[in-house]
Amino acid sequence: MTTHITTKEYRRRLAAAEAAAKAQGVDALLFTPGADLMYLCGYEAVPLERLTCLMITPEGPAAIIVPELEVLAAEASPVAALGIQIVPWSETASPYRTLAKRLKKANKVAVAPQMWASHVFALQEQLRVARFRSDDIVADLRMRKSKVEIAALVEAGEAIDRVHAQVPALLRPGRTEREVGADIAALILSEGHATVDFVIVASGPNGASPHHEVSERVIEEGDPVVVDIGGTMPSGYCSDCTRTYAVGHPPAEFREAYAVLKAAQRAAVDHVRPGVTCESVDAAARDVMAAAGLGSAFMHRTGHGIGMSTHEEPYIVAGNTTVVEPGFAFSIEPGFYLPGKFGARIEDIVVATDSGAVSCNNQSHDLVVVDL
Amino acid sequence: MTTHITTKEYRRRLAAAEAAAKAQGVDALLFTPGADLMYLCGYEAVPLERLTCLMITPEGPAAIIVPELEVLAAEASPVAALGIQIVPWSETASPYRTLAKRLKKANKVAVAPQMWASHVFALQEQLRVARFRSDDIVADLRMRKSKVEIAALVEAGEAIDRVHAQVPALLRPGRTEREVGADIAALILSEGHATVDFVIVASGPNGASPHHEVSERVIEEGDPVVVDIGGTMPSGYCSDCTRTYAVGHPPAEFREAYAVLKAAQRAAVDHVRPGVTCESVDAAARDVMAAAGLGSAFMHRTGHGIGMSTHEEPYIVAGNTTVVEPGFAFSIEPGFYLPGKFGARIEDIVVATDSGAVSCNNQSHDLVVVDL
Repeated sequence: MTTHITTKEYRRRLAAAEAAAKAQGVDALLFTPGADLMYLCGYEAVPLERLTCLMITPEGPAAIIVPELEVLAAEASPVAALGIQIVPWSETASPYRTLAKRLKKANKVAVAPQMWASHVFALQEQLRVARFRSDDIVADLRMRKSKVEIAALVEAGEAIDRVHAQVPALLRPGRTEREVGADIAALILSEGHATVDFVIVASGPNGASPHHEVSERVIEEGDPVVVDIGGTMPSGYCSDCTRTYAVGHPPAEFREAYAVLKAAQRAAVDHVRPGVTCESVDAAARDVMAAAGLGSAFMHRTGHGIGMSTHEEPYIVAGNTTVVEPGFAFSIEPGFYLPGKFGARIEDIVVATDSGAVSCNNQSHDLVVVDL
Repeated sequence: MTTHITTKEYRRRLAAAEAAAKAQGVDALLFTPGADLMYLCGYEAVPLERLTCLMITPEGPAAIIVPELEVLAAEASPVAALGIQIVPWSETASPYRTLAKRLKKANKVAVAPQMWASHVFALQEQLRVARFRSDDIVADLRMRKSKVEIAALVEAGEAIDRVHAQVPALLRPGRTEREVGADIAALILSEGHATVDFVIVASGPNGASPHHEVSERVIEEGDPVVVDIGGTMPSGYCSDCTRTYAVGHPPAEFREAYAVLKAAQRAAVDHVRPGVTCESVDAAARDVMAAAGLGSAFMHRTGHGIGMSTHEEPYIVAGNTTVVEPGFAFSIEPGFYLPGKFGARIEDIVVATDSGAVSCNNQSHDLVVVDL
């Protein structure tokens, strides 16, 4: 199956954004290409120097400014069926002026958090009295997943689980991280993703760098290998899952720390239920690590929301007092990183439900020791 | 060969940016992950919600703010050898405050054009008196390609030419655009690119949409097919090349228009030499199209600069009076688009030299009729 977002669902999202804008006294919501635009109207335009911008005002109806050469592409998207007016601009015109004309009376303007600075400044030049801010209305909507969105995340989780199931066979001493990474990228596609978003294969000491990607390092016998991978499905929803493997037998120090990590990840998952704060989920994992003397080796937050972006609200981090609701979807991914030695991380995407966390990823959390 | 940017070249770029900032009275240049950051220091970080930001001031030396979990990744990049100070921030701290502390006296701040709005607004909140603008200093530096950059673009051109050479064999009636596109994506990688950036396979009437990507449309006998493809090489430099194919014999109306298009593309390439304006290069192609009654069917600019981004300065468009200099690299890609019927485009990347344009793409411009 491929999850499909209906016109009805897009209408619901647009109406919710419109209502929130009204409630907050925001005169215009502006979205350039990116996940927010995809979420609101299913238009998958590429962010480029030519302005494409969806405009939502409390008075509705929405309009989208598009370069003339992309009118047919916009018409082929769900935009047309949603009754969003398509407003083309020609190559030698100013799209900012076109947009500003429609927003003459706007005082408060909220823009997509990922809008390019060049677009922001050009709009501000045209709308000198308006106050601009980074929009958080759509982030808030996106945080609360509907049934169809949860189905899409489950589908993405199953696809990346099928990739992880094939990773042990790729990990052999003598192969480089880059070679293994290329094989994994091919599997991410063949198991159903539309794009490969990231491939981390961090072997031996490289495992101590949480955002290591791949390198020419040759995998050696005894290496722990952190494999953190994800892609975007045809539905537009993302996968993200980490497992740590051992190529042959890793040091005892690693095994001991790994056992703590497994317990920490479990503790955070078990803690998830409606009503707890995001920072308390972080603390649940962190406390286990700290009690075992691994607190300083776990230097990143426990997780991030996921949906049409790999990273989105809610962030599972100290200081975030947002209260978990059913439908929140986020990663739980504690790790430990010992520079010069090795690192490890276990990551699942979970969805909060009334009865606790349901995991989208279901490969075993045990350390997979690759037999040589 | 793989083109490699030396530490010396990065130093030259950083020094040039520093000098231009001084000359323009800019107190700080700020770069989040993207092509400008790659160009200046070779650090290929992913643009995410966590702030990574290179700071260049006229007093130098440069510093880069990075999330604590990415310190090892930054150290593994050319950043360390360039003497750029790495300033980590921990998950619960404010990177904007850290950055602002170092920019207390800044009045004029220029930021990467692609910096996210969320980062811009958070910085403005910390630096309330500073005036912000979109940086054009680095775009200006990037417009003038060095010898090694030209070599990288030639290498990218050769790689995408090898892909185009294999396209006719993929175009068969009965195949969908999506199937052909998947094969082309695989070839883009196997011919030496590190990433696939875009694949347009626009058959029959879809050819009338310049930014069509792929669809489920089944290719039919007699279809013209526009194939516009590109990727990024391991060097960080991009390819971008369009050819139009005919699957079997296309209508006479198409053949006649195609002959005009070929002449228009040639006219623009022949016009390129130091001293002419970018808009005159556009006009050279446009005049040929207009004289044959195809003026309104050619609704986009003639081209865009290319380097570490697929689209960058200079834009070959009416209104751009920038004067061409040796080392400018840009596309020349006129097209015609007849809604409901078909479209065509011919695109090469050319580099301006003292003796005229040198093309990085060298597949024939003749209409390739695929024999069935």
